[in-house]
Amino acid sequence: MAAGPELTNIRSPRVKAARRLAKRAFRERDRAFLAEGPQAVREAVALGGVVTEMFVTAEARARHAEIVEQAIRAGVPVLSVSGEVMAELAQTVTPQGLLAVCRFVHVPLTEAVGPGARLVAVMAHVRDPGNAGTVLRTADAAGADAVVFTDASVDPYNGKCVRAGAGSLFHLPVAIGVNVRDAVAHMRATGLRVLAADGAGTATLDDVDLGHPTAWIFGNEAWGLPDDVLALADEVVRVPIYGRAESLNLATAAAVCLYASAQAMRASPRAVASGG
Amino acid sequence: MAAGPELTNIRSPRVKAARRLAKRAFRERDRAFLAEGPQAVREAVALGGVVTEMFVTAEARARHAEIVEQAIRAGVPVLSVSGEVMAELAQTVTPQGLLAVCRFVHVPLTEAVGPGARLVAVMAHVRDPGNAGTVLRTADAAGADAVVFTDASVDPYNGKCVRAGAGSLFHLPVAIGVNVRDAVAHMRATGLRVLAADGAGTATLDDVDLGHPTAWIFGNEAWGLPDDVLALADEVVRVPIYGRAESLNLATAAAVCLYASAQAMRASPRAVASGG
Repeated sequence: MAAGPELTNIRSPRVKAARRLAKRAFRERDRAFLAEGPQAVREAVALGGVVTEMFVTAEARARHAEIVEQAIRAGVPVLSVSGEVMAELAQTVTPQGLLAVCRFVHVPLTEAVGPGARLVAVMAHVRDPGNAGTVLRTADAAGADAVVFTDASVDPYNGKCVRAGAGSLFHLPVAIGVNVRDAVAHMRATGLRVLAADGAGTATLDDVDLGHPTAWIFGNEAWGLPDDVLALADEVVRVPIYGRAESLNLATAAAVCLYASAQAMRASPRAVASGG
Repeated sequence: MAAGPELTNIRSPRVKAARRLAKRAFRERDRAFLAEGPQAVREAVALGGVVTEMFVTAEARARHAEIVEQAIRAGVPVLSVSGEVMAELAQTVTPQGLLAVCRFVHVPLTEAVGPGARLVAVMAHVRDPGNAGTVLRTADAAGADAVVFTDASVDPYNGKCVRAGAGSLFHLPVAIGVNVRDAVAHMRATGLRVLAADGAGTATLDDVDLGHPTAWIFGNEAWGLPDDVLALADEVVRVPIYGRAESLNLATAAAVCLYASAQAMRASPRAVASGG
């Protein structure tokens, strides 16, 4: 189970090749990205065929032996690296000693959202990678069938997004770079009702019968969704504000919407019957 | 409406006095904190008797004239400052040019949570100020009657918490530094059911009848709530995970719990009748 001598040179070609995946242009060229920390790396390894290389410190190898062993069994090259090399590769202040180079995992929209889909989250203008990752994780938790990143949203392979997603990128089908009009047309053709979540909505979450297969569109952190996207939706829905806050933050509002849908569909036999 | 010459010296005593409020020890000595940006400053000014001094750049004075005028009408000393001074005072990378020195706004627990209370959020071990501020804002949006920060949680006057709270600190009663046992005892004496939100809960949100006045206890981002706090609750409740995510993040889980309670109580005449 030894993995050769510890790599200590931060200028080694393999370290440099991995490190530049922090930049989107290199990710797109190599069609690869970095997953950092035990949670994301464990999920990436479990998915199979995704991890092409793993970097691990001696300490992390001892602490997360089962992850490293599973990677080795799957034929993934595992490189032992010094703390200094890990610090060079990792994008966090206190790296957890485990980092995987992963192949892109997204799928075409038509594959992500098929006829049986009941709950889909569409990120239409989400720019903050932490928010995008949190919505992805929440959609996964709420049992969504897919998550769609439009071409106006952040890159889901951004390191912050991968971290905030906590492994969910490896759990459910993700489509990326889709034009929002095409996304909405496809959802509707698939039988999903399209709801835009926006503070400008005339209907509130309490007014809408959520017991139907639904695609939720989420907008920008600061300014919500543009009028042309709102116009695409079957209904614009806001989370009701019962108190004095002006609004909710994006990830919080998305959580309330996605869970409200998930729970309403569980309570509705019709939606269950239409499910896959 | 002129406010004297523009202050350009970052070493001026007033700038130094305000700047050190970034540190908790000075906040506690002066019983004062900083609110940054138009949203928080507007709410602080609107509350009355809270803002003791305001710093504003020429640009922000033009853009947010109504906030500055309201402060001046209320007798708040408003200091014009250069961009350099604002950068020294502000805790954000791109300051919005408006910053208020505010008196502490918290109240005793018994005042925050009175007999009519129907929904309370208790942060028992929340350490990340951004998360704490987000939960505060969500509790405000969900119509909570109060938010309680126990002595094991982050300081709500931390700049990041104030910013993430987006003005909610000025909207609803907040109690701070309370021992969690005392908090729970008081909630129960007030007629609130005490629910601990934790991934270890045996009951899920779907199993619990939420149509009763409720205090929710939220724990730490990484490890939830300690056993002794779980033991204090009437019930330990988890947000159901319908998909493959291991968990939800703290602020997201809190949003789902608080909104589920708010909506169930709205649907329940008994809870409304017991409300204030």
